[in-house]
Amino acid sequence: MRAVRLHDYHKQPVVEDVPEPKLTGPLDVIVKIGGAGVCRTDLHIIEGQWAQMMGPRLPYTIGHENAGWVEAVGDGVTQVKVGDTVILHPQPSCGACPACRRGRDMGCSNAFFPGVSDHDGGMAEYLLTTERACVRLNPETDPAEVAALADAGISAYHAVRRAVPLLRPGSVAVVQGAGGLGHIGIQALTALTSARIIVVDRSREALDLATRIGADETVVSDGDHVAAVADLTEGQGADVVFDFVAEQGAENDAWAMTGADGSLFVVGYGGELRIPTADLVSGRKSVVGNMVGSYTDLVELMALAQSGKIILRTRRYALEDAVEAFEDLAAGRIRGRAILVP
Amino acid sequence: MRAVRLHDYHKQPVVEDVPEPKLTGPLDVIVKIGGAGVCRTDLHIIEGQWAQMMGPRLPYTIGHENAGWVEAVGDGVTQVKVGDTVILHPQPSCGACPACRRGRDMGCSNAFFPGVSDHDGGMAEYLLTTERACVRLNPETDPAEVAALADAGISAYHAVRRAVPLLRPGSVAVVQGAGGLGHIGIQALTALTSARIIVVDRSREALDLATRIGADETVVSDGDHVAAVADLTEGQGADVVFDFVAEQGAENDAWAMTGADGSLFVVGYGGELRIPTADLVSGRKSVVGNMVGSYTDLVELMALAQSGKIILRTRRYALEDAVEAFEDLAAGRIRGRAILVP
Amino acid sequence: MRAVRLHDYHKQPVVEDVPEPKLTGPLDVIVKIGGAGVCRTDLHIIEGQWAQMMGPRLPYTIGHENAGWVEAVGDGVTQVKVGDTVILHPQPSCGACPACRRGRDMGCSNAFFPGVSDHDGGMAEYLLTTERACVRLNPETDPAEVAALADAGISAYHAVRRAVPLLRPGSVAVVQGAGGLGHIGIQALTALTSARIIVVDRSREALDLATRIGADETVVSDGDHVAAVADLTEGQGADVVFDFVAEQGAENDAWAMTGADGSLFVVGYGGELRIPTADLVSGRKSVVGNMVGSYTDLVELMALAQSGKIILRTRRYALEDAVEAFEDLAAGRIRGRAILVP
Amino acid sequence: MRAVRLHDYHKQPVVEDVPEPKLTGPLDVIVKIGGAGVCRTDLHIIEGQWAQMMGPRLPYTIGHENAGWVEAVGDGVTQVKVGDTVILHPQPSCGACPACRRGRDMGCSNAFFPGVSDHDGGMAEYLLTTERACVRLNPETDPAEVAALADAGISAYHAVRRAVPLLRPGSVAVVQGAGGLGHIGIQALTALTSARIIVVDRSREALDLATRIGADETVVSDGDHVAAVADLTEGQGADVVFDFVAEQGAENDAWAMTGADGSLFVVGYGGELRIPTADLVSGRKSVVGNMVGSYTDLVELMALAQSGKIILRTRRYALEDAVEAFEDLAAGRIRGRAILVP
Repeated sequence: MRAVRLHDYHKQPVVEDVPEPKLTGPLDVIVKIGGAGVCRTDLHIIEGQWAQMMGPRLPYTIGHENAGWVEAVGDGVTQVKVGDTVILHPQPSCGACPACRRGRDMGCSNAFFPGVSDHDGGMAEYLLTTERACVRLNPETDPAEVAALADAGISAYHAVRRAVPLLRPGSVAVVQGAGGLGHIGIQALTALTSARIIVVDRSREALDLATRIGADETVVSDGDHVAAVADLTEGQGADVVFDFVAEQGAENDAWAMTGADGSLFVVGYGGELRIPTADLVSGRKSVVGNMVGSYTDLVELMALAQSGKIILRTRRYALEDAVEAFEDLAAGRIRGRAILVP
Repeated sequence: MRAVRLHDYHKQPVVEDVPEPKLTGPLDVIVKIGGAGVCRTDLHIIEGQWAQMMGPRLPYTIGHENAGWVEAVGDGVTQVKVGDTVILHPQPSCGACPACRRGRDMGCSNAFFPGVSDHDGGMAEYLLTTERACVRLNPETDPAEVAALADAGISAYHAVRRAVPLLRPGSVAVVQGAGGLGHIGIQALTALTSARIIVVDRSREALDLATRIGADETVVSDGDHVAAVADLTEGQGADVVFDFVAEQGAENDAWAMTGADGSLFVVGYGGELRIPTADLVSGRKSVVGNMVGSYTDLVELMALAQSGKIILRTRRYALEDAVEAFEDLAAGRIRGRAILVP
Repeated sequence: MRAVRLHDYHKQPVVEDVPEPKLTGPLDVIVKIGGAGVCRTDLHIIEGQWAQMMGPRLPYTIGHENAGWVEAVGDGVTQVKVGDTVILHPQPSCGACPACRRGRDMGCSNAFFPGVSDHDGGMAEYLLTTERACVRLNPETDPAEVAALADAGISAYHAVRRAVPLLRPGSVAVVQGAGGLGHIGIQALTALTSARIIVVDRSREALDLATRIGADETVVSDGDHVAAVADLTEGQGADVVFDFVAEQGAENDAWAMTGADGSLFVVGYGGELRIPTADLVSGRKSVVGNMVGSYTDLVELMALAQSGKIILRTRRYALEDAVEAFEDLAAGRIRGRAILVP
Repeated sequence: MRAVRLHDYHKQPVVEDVPEPKLTGPLDVIVKIGGAGVCRTDLHIIEGQWAQMMGPRLPYTIGHENAGWVEAVGDGVTQVKVGDTVILHPQPSCGACPACRRGRDMGCSNAFFPGVSDHDGGMAEYLLTTERACVRLNPETDPAEVAALADAGISAYHAVRRAVPLLRPGSVAVVQGAGGLGHIGIQALTALTSARIIVVDRSREALDLATRIGADETVVSDGDHVAAVADLTEGQGADVVFDFVAEQGAENDAWAMTGADGSLFVVGYGGELRIPTADLVSGRKSVVGNMVGSYTDLVELMALAQSGKIILRTRRYALEDAVEAFEDLAAGRIRGRAILVP
């Protein structure tokens, strides 16, 4: 089958032929890929930023935002059957460790992360995963329309969901970054809260999209954006800031936009927060790190998506054109999310 | 009356005669001081660290950990009467602003902070406060025994109380700093949770006290303490770290001791946290700033204190010897808390 | 001034002249009434159901859902000024008792309830209340459009708000009773959750309104409604049932519609729940009593109302026609809420 | 092997020979029983109260509070190995259904309940269960000392744990029933809260035990107990009532002891609660049904037990003397818990 393989860090992956995956255990599931999202983390992988933490042996197939149809199942599988339309949680968990027993999949001590850890990902015709990653969809769902919800979507949704108790009618939520994750976050905020939503982004086009999907106000991040948010909130700052950027100084802007008794939910990564403890204490502020979300988060997100409350804006590329998609993302030419379709 | 007055930053305060305070509004309360705690924040005030944020006009009377007996009340006061034994929340609130209506006294937009803001504090024979600061005690309580619970106590208690949902039987709590706040925090942890408690401090004497009041394990902070906590937790780190130091690099040690899915509760201040957003995100960790606590926190803390579950270790000084107390605190010669008794 | 006065239980009130109220304390506020909602509780008062618990001396003015303009303020009032447009929390609280200090206004041990307790209500030209009851509105708001949010609205909102953590995307909420409270509850559910909403009512007209404002499905309560809800939920029952009726057997239907691990939120009253403890335990079910809500709930509800997310359907009556309004309500001829306009 | 078998409802079980269980699936575990608790539910089973809901085919082996040593494991088992000392969650769950994915084991749609449902229980030499039921203990633990924590213990602990957010220092908790469950509940309250604990029971001997393990006050349930609790709480009632009896009218006493804004946690069963909705609403009270608890609850409870914070008072019987144990329990002759030892 065809697959997008990373051979060397700092070089673009290659689309080439590899053997199809095979079932190896009773809970294994092989999925025929219908769509694979392209994520900023793929760029980070290519740049080698995850090499040390994840240690994949090169070459390997990347792609961790996957949806498609069940092609084959191990003999212990009970939750899905061949032919089911599914979206895949990006990190199959074991179900038995203490974290799994609490429903905290991301803390699973035996998990793997196809396309990131040393396991082949979904930018290919077929993917090997397990039953515990599979969320069943309405049969007629087009996997390419929802694939990016598997990681970008769940990450944004998880952060918004955790913040719901902090966002009352009349509260202020700031969303920094209205790209792939941000535009899902805005829709999740609209679906789950009645907070006032202020969106900050460099791109006016991204802000226009934000307005159409639920932003109450928008701010161009042109250097005066922290002051602009302060003005819009009468100097109070936000009750919750969602930082989908969190690099190149944006992370400290996000902190500055967080008001007293407020919380900064960090989803993006790359930068370094520098916070005087006196500010943290006197403002009674919190910082909350978020990574992906649980299987249950994905189930809930798909309930929203299948009822039309969250819609991904996508641009499709043939699997063969994967490198073009990477380049477009790196250059900031994607609104919403790029999707590879085998 | 005699009072401890700060005339110039970077110089020790002076004990001198000043006029007694007078009632000015219907909810005012004048308290005859029975004990005034000496806090590290007093040292910070003397050093001018709060000058810009709080802007008191010098000279003024410091002291924000106060307990005593009601001496006089305004004509609208209904909750206390002359002669009541009381401990005083350090920040009288207005009761009418949005934060007060939610029970979030520390967010009150009309509050003041006697002894810190531009209002005379309690290192004196009498203090002017309001009804909203007064928590009534058993009549026979010695104010000097409990005064330090008014600020050090409530700050430690508030942080522990917020962390209770995160601390199950089997969870690990690390307490960094077993001084005035820390030794209350340890007792609050023992009263409110069954977590395993690891205490980190530079002083073996402080650690011995910690063991007597509930610590399960102790670690001398000698440079290897982060590694020692890692060893004690089999590399997992703590579920919750309470940092009562948060300066001179301790704040980043505290972060390093916080495990995946864990939370760092910051109570001390002075240093600067430096956190790569990638660590925050991949570890799904949180940082929570805490300052003092609500009136209700103080009521609960006094319920613990009056039933003997929290006992302050104190050293008493005559009001005239205030400077000696400041010097002993600065030199690390206080175990527990120094109290001035007029 | 003109006022709607109850002279005898079981007889309709009389519209007659009474003296205008006067300020008596520093925090008193007199409000010129712009609209007073007619509530099923008014019918219960006339029938004497609250006589024993509340003990008002007859005759007195009823009416506990009030909005209007500030006419006069006591000299301690800081939060509103003459001319402000306001809606009034129905139960002015003291602000000083333990419940008030926690933000739990309804538990205030010194509260009164104009129009229900032994204090004149708002079906009149002027009402005496206190500063702590006043929520300021946009100046141009028509009080008659929002008055019923003061009690019916806050009661429905409070119950929905408490249930938010139980209502995930994909959860099932059943609303029993789509009248005055129910149609606000439906809108609150739509504003604060993405749950699936099933509405049960005797009236097809009420169900049509429910569909227009957010119900996903409707069920006529014709005796087969418990089975119908079971069918719609594949035998699982609801995650949360909101019972705005809770009398004449509806309360036990509501219990029967509540699924395993589900919760029954009771807002209406009059009937008696009969629950075998074996069912409670084996189903791991909860029952939650709700009465009115806090001041903060009303602030949040008004944020929703003023942004157009909650719209009351009202029918206006002149104050002189109060009895006609009572009769229409008793006869089930009101969709939404009847409002008296002085 | 020897086993305690129920042949007919309303007749005592028979101790007789049956074949040993065999592994049938990859996650099966066979446990050599070290202790099997005798529970009031066993009496209910004998009386046929669970016949309809659970439908076991007679004869079958009862006993659902089990601990022992792992004797054999299926080839997919990873969490325990032969020889491990284990306590068994009474209801093995599937791990794959929506409830399991949230960590809500008791809501598992594929669970079974050995000794209650149509599966042989643990009053025998060996028991067949699955990996998902096994909690590993310190190797030297005597299973007979902890077995009753498997169901009585987890049920009491689960209810207390859920109530922790409602029980502040100064709050009042009433425990009705100081028998097998109650005396664990009291210890859990002491370990997890600093609430004031009032215990109500018919037996002075049970109340004496209650005092030794943490009760602050005790009340004999002699008909005046509701009034006695009212007196002890100055007419306020309890913040939380735990009803471990919930039959023969005790359930309505428990409701009457619950104060305004308070919660009734029901754990026992058999009676019928009758609650006027007006009382539920005007008191803003809740009723919470509890059944057993999650696997994670059992892990936490064993952390308490293994650190000595919860100690079961037990009386041991040889397996052959099972009927004597049933009779002693029925006659109220057991303090703490009866344990069968094979």
